[in-house]
Amino acid sequence: MDNHTSSQHTSSEHTSSKAPVTLLGLGDMGTALARAWLTAGHPLTVWNRTPAKAGPLAAEGARVAASPAEALASATGPVVLCLLDDDSVGETLDGIDLTGKDLVDLTTNTPARSRLRAAWAEERGARFLDGGIMAVPPMIGRPETGGYVFYSGDRALFERHREVLEAPTGAKFVGEDAGHAALHDIALLSAMTGMFAGITHAFALVRPEKDLDLAGFAALLAQWLGAMTGMTHEMAAQLESGDYTEGVTSNLAMMSAGNDALLATAEGQSVDPRLLTPFMELMRRRVTQGHGEEGLAGTVGLLRGE
Amino acid sequence: MDNHTSSQHTSSEHTSSKAPVTLLGLGDMGTALARAWLTAGHPLTVWNRTPAKAGPLAAEGARVAASPAEALASATGPVVLCLLDDDSVGETLDGIDLTGKDLVDLTTNTPARSRLRAAWAEERGARFLDGGIMAVPPMIGRPETGGYVFYSGDRALFERHREVLEAPTGAKFVGEDAGHAALHDIALLSAMTGMFAGITHAFALVRPEKDLDLAGFAALLAQWLGAMTGMTHEMAAQLESGDYTEGVTSNLAMMSAGNDALLATAEGQSVDPRLLTPFMELMRRRVTQGHGEEGLAGTVGLLRGE
Repeated sequence: MDNHTSSQHTSSEHTSSKAPVTLLGLGDMGTALARAWLTAGHPLTVWNRTPAKAGPLAAEGARVAASPAEALASATGPVVLCLLDDDSVGETLDGIDLTGKDLVDLTTNTPARSRLRAAWAEERGARFLDGGIMAVPPMIGRPETGGYVFYSGDRALFERHREVLEAPTGAKFVGEDAGHAALHDIALLSAMTGMFAGITHAFALVRPEKDLDLAGFAALLAQWLGAMTGMTHEMAAQLESGDYTEGVTSNLAMMSAGNDALLATAEGQSVDPRLLTPFMELMRRRVTQGHGEEGLAGTVGLLRGE
Repeated sequence: MDNHTSSQHTSSEHTSSKAPVTLLGLGDMGTALARAWLTAGHPLTVWNRTPAKAGPLAAEGARVAASPAEALASATGPVVLCLLDDDSVGETLDGIDLTGKDLVDLTTNTPARSRLRAAWAEERGARFLDGGIMAVPPMIGRPETGGYVFYSGDRALFERHREVLEAPTGAKFVGEDAGHAALHDIALLSAMTGMFAGITHAFALVRPEKDLDLAGFAALLAQWLGAMTGMTHEMAAQLESGDYTEGVTSNLAMMSAGNDALLATAEGQSVDPRLLTPFMELMRRRVTQGHGEEGLAGTVGLLRGE
């Protein structure tokens, strides 16, 4: 530690052998990432549209750039974008020379927009890696929480900056198609939304029971759902082979038949079954089409109009 | 082993110190349970409406009763009912003296029907335990698969016959309300249905991607959902305390805002979002009511017309 240097920027450069990071966007997620990089000893340059957000980080050792152009001009390591949305990325980088820069876009995006942004970056001479963050800000910098970021796009960029990318949370590369990080991100969040719908319905069922221990129920429910996640492997194998009856543990006819008890119980417990009925109808439709021996993979095509 | 006895019934009685079991109903589940009890060395008496189903089990050592009345008359241990439905239970036991019998009803049932059946059994002088099976037949007799049965009703009956009940698969007692086994069973299956809906949507999203490894995706999806099952504990604590903002990791406003990207991605990937939209609408309704700071527990009441 060189106590004689007054500039935090200079201080960081002198005291760290870690790669420098440039970060645009200091929302809750950007701020959490910034802290994690500072904690890990990476020299950090930040910029935010509202400069006040950068104050506390400056006090913790970050260099604050006055503009995106200034931040980019001095960037020798990855330039991480953690902005409001993809439009903000375009506006923020508009007119700035991106030649030779390594852009890592953690801004929330759809796969289609990520692909367009990757092409846009390449046209401007930049390398591009898209990221989809599977964590909430409090999980950043705490590896024990199991959070991580999906990355896709330029594999060499990912490998080159792996140490930087892994400092705040886990990092998983899922392919060279720039849209695949966002696709993985959103597919997992979509599945989670379905699971949360099911959990909500389950709690609505047990809610009126006075003698039922909710904490105990929660533990049983979590354990059961955890065990049933194995269904993903069965579905992947079936979709891969095209034989939707392959290795079926519980087929659509059996599950469909069991739905009557689920609906009768919902009615008996005064619970609106609307969160579950669309999927029950999908299963019944496939059974009616004569595919009752199939597993869940048989219903996937129905969502795609096949 | 007494090689001089020719009757398998007598043989079982001579060679086993295990408690005897009587089982009515030899569908796939009943047959799997019968095999597990025989394997564990329990003297077993079986009855099935279609006698042919009992043949293979007789060859394996089961005594076959000619009628439910005969099976019941000789029953000194638990009488396990694994019939088609609750109506079958009433018909099968109609007119038979149940005084002093220990009935264990594993027939699939709603909580309301289980409670009625418990009262019906008690009126006839029988003790009653209801069970909800959290396993498919291939999991019976294979503890490593993690299957189990929820039991509720007569706690003393459960404790007395615990060894019998635990022989085929795990056993969890969830309360003296006879309806609670079925309620736990169906609540867990309901939540699973929601999770499977989410998983189906997720696979529909990634289906058209040529360069995406489905097996790798399945593993990531299973891991993510497993991690997210922790939400059950947060919801239980919130419902218990009545403060739906307590310990919130991701509130309804945040999740609701993220749903736009989920819907845009579904559209971009040509996937019908109908499995997820009812829950998205429920979240939005709660946010619109001014409760965006709440966790998922805030949506439970909306399913109950509160």
